[in-house]
Parts: sequence; structure tokens; C-alpha cells
Amino acid sequence: MSELLEKAERLKTASQTLAMLSAEEKNEALEQIAQTLDRERAFILQENEKDMAQGREQGLSPALLDRLQLTNERLDQIIDGVRQVASLPDPVGEIIAEWTRPNGLRIQTVRVPLGVIGMVYEARPNVTVDAASLCLKTGNAVLLRGSTSALHSNKALVRVMKEALRTTTVPETAIELLEDTSRETAQRMFRLNNYLDVLIPRGGAGLIRSVVENATVPVLETGVGNCHIFVDESAERQMAIEIVLNAKLQRPSVCNAVETVLIHERWPYAADLLETLHARGVELRGDQRLASAYPFISEATEDDWYTEYLAPILAVKLVADVDEAIGHIRRYGTKHSEAIITENEVNVRRFFQAVDAAVLYHNASTRFTDGEQFGYGAEIGISTQKLHARGPMGLVAITTTKSLVYGTGQIRES
Amino acid sequence: MSELLEKAERLKTASQTLAMLSAEEKNEALEQIAQTLDRERAFILQENEKDMAQGREQGLSPALLDRLQLTNERLDQIIDGVRQVASLPDPVGEIIAEWTRPNGLRIQTVRVPLGVIGMVYEARPNVTVDAASLCLKTGNAVLLRGSTSALHSNKALVRVMKEALRTTTVPETAIELLEDTSRETAQRMFRLNNYLDVLIPRGGAGLIRSVVENATVPVLETGVGNCHIFVDESAERQMAIEIVLNAKLQRPSVCNAVETVLIHERWPYAADLLETLHARGVELRGDQRLASAYPFISEATEDDWYTEYLAPILAVKLVADVDEAIGHIRRYGTKHSEAIITENEVNVRRFFQAVDAAVLYHNASTRFTDGEQFGYGAEIGISTQKLHARGPMGLVAITTTKSLVYGTGQIRES
Repeated sequence: MSELLEKAERLKTASQTLAMLSAEEKNEALEQIAQTLDRERAFILQENEKDMAQGREQGLSPALLDRLQLTNERLDQIIDGVRQVASLPDPVGEIIAEWTRPNGLRIQTVRVPLGVIGMVYEARPNVTVDAASLCLKTGNAVLLRGSTSALHSNKALVRVMKEALRTTTVPETAIELLEDTSRETAQRMFRLNNYLDVLIPRGGAGLIRSVVENATVPVLETGVGNCHIFVDESAERQMAIEIVLNAKLQRPSVCNAVETVLIHERWPYAADLLETLHARGVELRGDQRLASAYPFISEATEDDWYTEYLAPILAVKLVADVDEAIGHIRRYGTKHSEAIITENEVNVRRFFQAVDAAVLYHNASTRFTDGEQFGYGAEIGISTQKLHARGPMGLVAITTTKSLVYGTGQIRES
Repeated sequence: MSELLEKAERLKTASQTLAMLSAEEKNEALEQIAQTLDRERAFILQENEKDMAQGREQGLSPALLDRLQLTNERLDQIIDGVRQVASLPDPVGEIIAEWTRPNGLRIQTVRVPLGVIGMVYEARPNVTVDAASLCLKTGNAVLLRGSTSALHSNKALVRVMKEALRTTTVPETAIELLEDTSRETAQRMFRLNNYLDVLIPRGGAGLIRSVVENATVPVLETGVGNCHIFVDESAERQMAIEIVLNAKLQRPSVCNAVETVLIHERWPYAADLLETLHARGVELRGDQRLASAYPFISEATEDDWYTEYLAPILAVKLVADVDEAIGHIRRYGTKHSEAIITENEVNVRRFFQAVDAAVLYHNASTRFTDGEQFGYGAEIGISTQKLHARGPMGLVAITTTKSLVYGTGQIRES
């Protein structure tokens, strides 16, 4: 039997045990994982160094090497993360709805684990522990498929977590790492509907597309954010400038950063905003009117309106009104996060109703699209799909429900 | 441009209008559809007769011809169905949650339409109207892909519905029929992620498998039900017999009918149950012990335990206890509907916790897994997947959410 099938079988069996554990048992397992990771720092760092050496040899970019590297400080963060997940309320077992039918049947809908989750991710080894702890917390078993470049680190982290579970009621087979990182095996994993209940890709657009295009297992899609801010005619000067700077520059590399700013052509402070952005080092690409009015704005191509720069680059465009802004966002947006800055309540309502996106903002930065910022405690990712979960996903996103029906002999008449 | 892309474009545009309509506007459109269908009965029946003639010529089975046929009585039911959907509450616009963050951001989660739904179904032309009215009610545009054998009927029904919409605020492009019913075009439809937000297959196992295996658009999977009833040691004689008869015979062809009964080996009334089933014409296939004890029980093969008979055939097996029953269901079940008949509360809790299925029953027939029976008013289907919706799906299953965030200039600090 292949490694994939063998581990999938084990996970399926483990998930049946996991589904019946109490919150206390799962939290105790998480605490054991935190303690064992802390105790095994030397081993983990030594194995990570093997990946780093190999990466340097293969000429990985400094950015990729940085993502791959574990340090004592990063281990602190990883261990803190596990304890934080343990401290969150357990969604499993919650009674979501309860009602009685005219024939006396009492129906309860309760929250239960999904079962077995397939996590597909790229270089960062911290995802290995992060994903495992979120899955354990919610009673899910997890198949981890990381990248080849992090294989030593991931093996070490999984070995340490399994060791920790040996002293708990959580079966150590609740966490399995797919060591065969070939493309062919990944493709087989994506179609393992009898074993995996959901796939969660975490990584760049290419990884996500590959999972979505090849999977028959349902996917929780996280994805690109080509986010917009529309600065309306009545926007307050200072507020608009601060929000745009924050949304572009506070962390340009993330999906909730702004990529295009649409400015009402009668907003009086366009020059102030654009000059401030330029002064703060943002490269500006604008429509024809803006490009001819400002020497520091180059003319945007059609591609620019589609681009998620993930860098200090910003597309800017003048629009005639809220409807032109809505039309632009409909055409180029990715349904992630879209903001309007205005003092006009009618335009807020129109924007909120007409724009189809996971999160819409009035007078706030798009950077708040985040599980922590929404108050969910932990974040699985930001869903850009419409089924199951939309926007920031907390623990609830990796659960499902079942209906329990209590009868007294009811049969169906028609 | 192909018919598929052209209609997909139109639907996407129509969905933006639909999302902003009030419940009254959508209900008025449904009432117009009901009236126009009523007025155009002669045309619809005449077009349906073309499909029937063609079907007879091609030697379709009497069962398939029966599914295909429209009559005045069936049109009554279809028209009633549209009015019933109109009478249900509109889930769109509902505020599901609302909270304020420490920084003053107020977050609202509201229910919105999915957008454009692709409905893939088989011969029954009633699905054309049923699906269209459920989608309109929830503000979704719909691409209908029925079968070639019902093409005249489907074209007539869609033409009549579009005619009805012309007098309303719902764009007539909110409903489109894919007239090109080739396999190749279906495959392209299943991968139209930029236009379709979800695919809903309605039909047999083959159709559903084909959609799940080929789609990159997210699927709301409805599926097979290999349902079990476990008759425990303490089950009441009369109740157990009535529930099993109801679950097997009240409508054997549906997914929530029982296919295997597991009988506790010390339940005193096994002979009564089995003889009653035999007397009522049920073909019984049992494990070795039952097959040797009863002349009217043939020995079941391994395949029988996996089979959804959808017919008056029942697999029966003796088990030692609730755990053996759970083990059997875990191995052969399809996570649809599973029942326990017992007076033992401890076993109910164990069964409810250990069996992973959409709906679990204590002392009631599995036949209640149904949107109407659950009190949802309308039914889109019964979901056998774990993401988004599980079990009977009402109108809410074809909606999603968006988060509206109200700020006063908040920016993110870290």
C-alpha cells in the first residue's frame, strides 16, 4: 500500500476517535505539543538547518530562505500559537438550532468535526504546527502536504508532535505528514474523496489554482485579493489619506492590502493624497488623466487594473461617481475586500448592496479582513469562495453539522 | 461567442440586478410565472408531446417516458410549487450576526444570493420550473442544463417563464436554458468558474459523479443514501416493525429509504419483523445466520452491504451490540440517514456521537430526511457533503453571506 493510502486510512480511523473527545482532552493534547516542541528545540533547529543548507545550495532566493528558516524566536511564536488555540472555546458539540415538528419529532442541529482535512502548503514550516493545532482543536485529523524544501523541518515537527500525543488520549495518527512530495502523489491526494473531507490550500495563487483545478475533494479556497478603495466626493481629507496609506503600506505583501484606489473626480484632495503616496515611496500607475497631470504617475495598462501587486505599487483612477466605482470593482475585483470612504450614507448603502465581495468597508482600512481582527481568535485563512465560509475563517469554518432527530415511533404518511 | 459563454455573460449581469431586488419584486415575478404557465398550458403540452413522441421512437423505457411526461395535473403541481416558493420568507438581507470590536469597528454579517447557479439535471421537466423559482426567490440567476430528451419541453417552459418576466423588474436573462446539450459543452460548463458560483446536480449517481469528477466550479453535492436502521435489544416490537416497513416500503425509490436493517442478536422479535417484511413482498438478503434460519432469506454478498437498492429489497444482518452496528455503518454507509430503534438512552447517545451522517434518528423513520419534513418549506436537495450545507437543503443553502464593516477612520496598527 502506498504511503498516501496507508496514512489516509490511519487518519480516517483516528478521526473517529477524535470526534468523541472532550474539549479538555484536546486542550491537554495541545499543551503537551507546546511543551514537547519547547523541549525539542535543538532537534528541530538542527533538522531545519539541513533544509536551509540544501536551500542555499539550490540557490533559493533570500525571501524563500527567510520563509523556510526557524529560529528560537520563531519557535516561541509557534509554541505561543499552539497555547492560544488551546485557550479558544471549542465549537464542537454546540447546539446550533433546535425545533419540534407538528408530528412531535424534535430536531437538533449540532456542530461536529469535518473529519479528515488535507492541508496543502508551501515553504513555511510554521504552517505544519499551526494547521495541526487548529485541526486537533476542532476534532479533525490532518494530512499535511508541505513542500520538498521544508521536508526535514516538517518531519521533525510532526515527529515531535506525535511524540507529545503519545501521553494523551488523542491518537498520534491524528497528524500525518505526506513525505512523498511528488506532483503525482499530490494529484492523487486531491482526488481521495473516500478519505479526505476537505482540502485547504495555503500559499500563492499558483498552488491554489492547481488544487482547485485538479481536486475532486471539496476545497476551502483562500485566494488573491485585488482590493479597492473608493474615495468619494465627500470623503474627509485626513481620514482618506490615512486609510489609503495604511491599506497600501502597513504590510504590502498580504491579500487584504489595497491595489487600486478609485478617486471621485470632484474630491478636492486628490493631489494631497497622490503626493503623500509618492512621498512615501509608493509607485503610482494611473489612468490617462492622472498620468498627464502628475509627473510621478505613469500610465497604467489594462493589466494593471487586474494586478495584485503585493508590493508598494498602486493603481489610481478618477471616476465620475459611485456607480463608475462599482462598475470598475465588478469588472476587476476578486470579491475579497472593498472599501468606500465617504460621508454620504446613500452611497454607502449603494456600495454595500451592489458590490459582491467577502468584506465591505465604510471608512476603514481593508487590512482588517483577518480572523484575529474580526475577533475569531485563530485564522484558518481568508475564504474567497462563496460556499461554506466567506471572508476570514475561524475555527467554525473547519467544522460541519449533523442533525439529531428524536422520535417516539414516527413514520412518514406521505 | 458560444451559446454557453453568451448566456453565462447575460446571467452574470442579470445576477447583479437580482441581488438588489426586494422580496416583493421577486414574489411578483414568481406570481407572473405561475399565471403565464397556467395560460400557456396548451403550448407547453404540445411541445412536451414532441419529446414524448421522440422518446417513444427511441425506445425510452416506460419509467423514463413517465418522468418525461407533462399532464394538466402535473402542470397544476408545478404552478402550485411556484406559488408555494413565493409564499416562503426571503432569506436574503437577513442580518445573521452583528458585533463591535474594541477599536469601534461594527461588523454585520448579512445573507446575500450566491450569484449564478448552474443546475444540471435529467429527464424530468418539472425541475426546470422548480429550480428556476427557487433561484429567483433567493436572488440567484440560473443556467439550466437539462437532458436532450426533454429539450422541447424545457425550451417551452423557459420561453414561457421569460415571457412572464418581461412584465416584472426581474430581467428575463435571469433564467437561461443551455440548448446545446452535448457532453463537451457540459464539461466546459462545469469549469466556468468566472461565471458560475455553484453547480447543483440533480439526478442519479452517474450524473452526480460526472459533475463532481469534472467540475472546478464548487458543487453542492446531493447523493446516494445507503441508509441503515439498527434495531437494538430493547427496541419495542410494534414500533420497530412499523418504522422498518415505513422506511423500506413507503417510497422505496428515494434516497432516504432504508437499505440495510441491523438487528441485535438478542432482540426477541426478529422473526416477527422478518416474516412481516416477507409477507409484504420485500425480498430479503441476509448474513449467513439469517439465511440459514429463514427459507425466504437468501445469502447476501459483500456487494449487498454497499448497495442502494431503491427497490423493495432489504439487506438484513444480526449484530452483537451497538458497537458492531456502528462499525458496519462506518464501513458501508454513505453518511446520509441512519437510525437506531431502542429504549436504551446510553446507546442513543453512543450512536448519535459515533455515527458520522447528515441525519441521525432515534425511534423514527429515515424517510423524514427531507426539506418539507424538516419544515424548510422548499427543498433544493439533500446534501451528502460536509461543506456549506448538510442534509436537507432549504432556500438558505443557495445563499451566502457578506460582512459589512462600519468604521470611523480605523486603520490597522499591527
